[in-house]
Amino acid sequence: MYDLVSLGKSAKMASTLLRAASEQERNRALSAIAGALRERREEILAANRIDLENARVAGMRNAMLDRLTLDQDRIEKIAGAVEEIIRLRDPIGVVEHGHNHPNGMQILRTRVPLGVVAMIYEARPNVTVDAAALCLKSGNACILRGGKEAFGTNRALAAIMRAAVEHAGLPADCIGLVEDTSRETAERLMKLDGYIDLLVPRGGAGLIKTVVKTATVPVIETGAGNCHIYVDSEADLAMAARIVDNAKTSRPSVCNAVETVLVHQEAAGDFLPMMKAALDAHNVEIRGCPKTRVILKTAVAATEEDYATEFNDYILAVKVVASFEEAVGHIAAYSSGHSEAIVTKNVEKARRFVREVDAAAVYVNASTRFTDGGEFGLGAEIGISTQKLHARGPMGLTELTTVKYVVNGDGQIR
Amino acid sequence: MYDLVSLGKSAKMASTLLRAASEQERNRALSAIAGALRERREEILAANRIDLENARVAGMRNAMLDRLTLDQDRIEKIAGAVEEIIRLRDPIGVVEHGHNHPNGMQILRTRVPLGVVAMIYEARPNVTVDAAALCLKSGNACILRGGKEAFGTNRALAAIMRAAVEHAGLPADCIGLVEDTSRETAERLMKLDGYIDLLVPRGGAGLIKTVVKTATVPVIETGAGNCHIYVDSEADLAMAARIVDNAKTSRPSVCNAVETVLVHQEAAGDFLPMMKAALDAHNVEIRGCPKTRVILKTAVAATEEDYATEFNDYILAVKVVASFEEAVGHIAAYSSGHSEAIVTKNVEKARRFVREVDAAAVYVNASTRFTDGGEFGLGAEIGISTQKLHARGPMGLTELTTVKYVVNGDGQIR
Repeated sequence: MYDLVSLGKSAKMASTLLRAASEQERNRALSAIAGALRERREEILAANRIDLENARVAGMRNAMLDRLTLDQDRIEKIAGAVEEIIRLRDPIGVVEHGHNHPNGMQILRTRVPLGVVAMIYEARPNVTVDAAALCLKSGNACILRGGKEAFGTNRALAAIMRAAVEHAGLPADCIGLVEDTSRETAERLMKLDGYIDLLVPRGGAGLIKTVVKTATVPVIETGAGNCHIYVDSEADLAMAARIVDNAKTSRPSVCNAVETVLVHQEAAGDFLPMMKAALDAHNVEIRGCPKTRVILKTAVAATEEDYATEFNDYILAVKVVASFEEAVGHIAAYSSGHSEAIVTKNVEKARRFVREVDAAAVYVNASTRFTDGGEFGLGAEIGISTQKLHARGPMGLTELTTVKYVVNGDGQIR
Repeated sequence: MYDLVSLGKSAKMASTLLRAASEQERNRALSAIAGALRERREEILAANRIDLENARVAGMRNAMLDRLTLDQDRIEKIAGAVEEIIRLRDPIGVVEHGHNHPNGMQILRTRVPLGVVAMIYEARPNVTVDAAALCLKSGNACILRGGKEAFGTNRALAAIMRAAVEHAGLPADCIGLVEDTSRETAERLMKLDGYIDLLVPRGGAGLIKTVVKTATVPVIETGAGNCHIYVDSEADLAMAARIVDNAKTSRPSVCNAVETVLVHQEAAGDFLPMMKAALDAHNVEIRGCPKTRVILKTAVAATEEDYATEFNDYILAVKVVASFEEAVGHIAAYSSGHSEAIVTKNVEKARRFVREVDAAAVYVNASTRFTDGGEFGLGAEIGISTQKLHARGPMGLTELTTVKYVVNGDGQIR
């Protein structure tokens, strides 16, 4: 059985030293990583060629092969991304509040690293570097478990990063790689209580579901997005059509894409043909309720399940609603709590929508596609949380930290 | 089987309305609760008398009977506590950050209610009102499950609060009571996924352990405190003795009381007799390492388990350490991450202790007993979290909320 406990112990020990490292020390290690990735790129490419060869023999699809592939240009981009992380504001040591107790003690609420962060992800080897760099920046040791198809590449990347970190004066064990890609070991990692302060799954819905179901260590759930746009009776219909088109077709595979459009019955007759005209450029399949199909003859009949589905594809569910309340009720019933939008000119309905809809991001007259760490000004993004505790919406470096109260006294007793 | 799902549905429905309620509406409901508790106190006392009678027959110990007992004075205090919660700053609607996207959209990070908060607690009926009031103030519906010994009292309190809330214009289901106090129903409550956004256990270590182990809904773990004080070689020893005495004897049963004192070997000879002189006034039993027992002849031999134990009693473990590093290492090995203190005159060691010790609260030259929502200026306290995600240390009303990004646009697309 692969010795995960030793890996956990090493990571925990490294996190103790990393907790006391200054921003300069952490940035120096990141800089060493970026340099070493460039310098030792031939090693990485050699390992990657073997992974690709094996994957081809195993019959991997082209789209997946492309995700797995590294070349000089991609390695340069990965190194550049590390340098961007260096430039982000240090999340550690931030004093969120500070005041003096009436007895004269100083009480500071400060941001500190979580400790050990584990990441489980799939075939993209760039995540190996990205995850390690985000953790290092936020003062956390990491334990990485990538997909088995990328294992050789990940092992080369981890070895290079570990050597660079050590060369820069921090423990190599700040970055740990699980060197056994079996499912059993992944499941034991999800249950490595006492060594892991946070586990973040990064990947498809299947992976995330498994992690949430199996893990006993703290997890942040990311990425499920069944998003809606409600086109109100008082909407600017041309604006609504542009927003729906953007939210569906600019990148249908992502979690902030729209899946269902709700349209008020007073607007449906005018709006749906406008919307369809825009979507036709991308051959979007429309699945509609009976009223939708009266207006759009070519629409397929929508099933109950369609309204619950994150298509991640050029497919859009549509429902004509009799009222604002019906729209909000539909969203409450089907939303995954990711991103929800209203298009309206009416300020009262805009305010009600913002108040009554329960989601990580609520939009008035804008595309759901903006729910993103970069767009929201957080810098790097670890993922988009759809849970309510600890992190909700785009997660930045701050979400990889916790709080420590520091109390400085002169002998105070209670 | 008791119908918990209906209770969950009613709470969720109520939370939807409560989410849109203004601070005035929530405060009016709280005010109605305080008034109704005073007005209908005879009903409460009658129900409490029956609970007490049954408890006496069942052989409940006096200390527990006292916790269960209500009288006019205690009801007045409970009503007064509700009025204090009214005066706290509204945690809802706070805009934590706000900025304009380069494209002109306004992006606001706002505080919103979690939704439905469940609380599982033991024999004190005052928690029924306190928990309901904290949830109502923070815009959350609550599901309350108190101890079976207090069931009649809790049912009376819940009925009075529900009527008051409804009279004030909010749904009665903002406050739900689990009307079956069986263990099975409690365990089903811990697994009521989809209806409960947060479960907070309030009570002894046994209850909290069961909840953490059993629950599949999100939980915040509170209350475990194995706290240390390290008396450095360069400490003001009189100050150190005062701090240890306060941290051990001012209230030994609470989680922020000290359990182990670590003393540097250079200070031990002078310090331990001073400390013992202070503790003798409360007959504190000292359990020491071999070096401690050379200095304090009457000390009992400490076992490994003593260092891992939260005594919650007039018992103190003591260990003489050879260095600052040994002290920090001992804390890392045994601490529950609650409150840790150093007594030293040396600024470098103070800074290192604050950086290297991983706990919710870290003290320099002050008693661990200050780790408390009231002392830290948070107003009401829901509990003291010893976990790292979402809440760490004293939890105020903000910890009963989550985040919603609100994006106001003019048709922006990406």
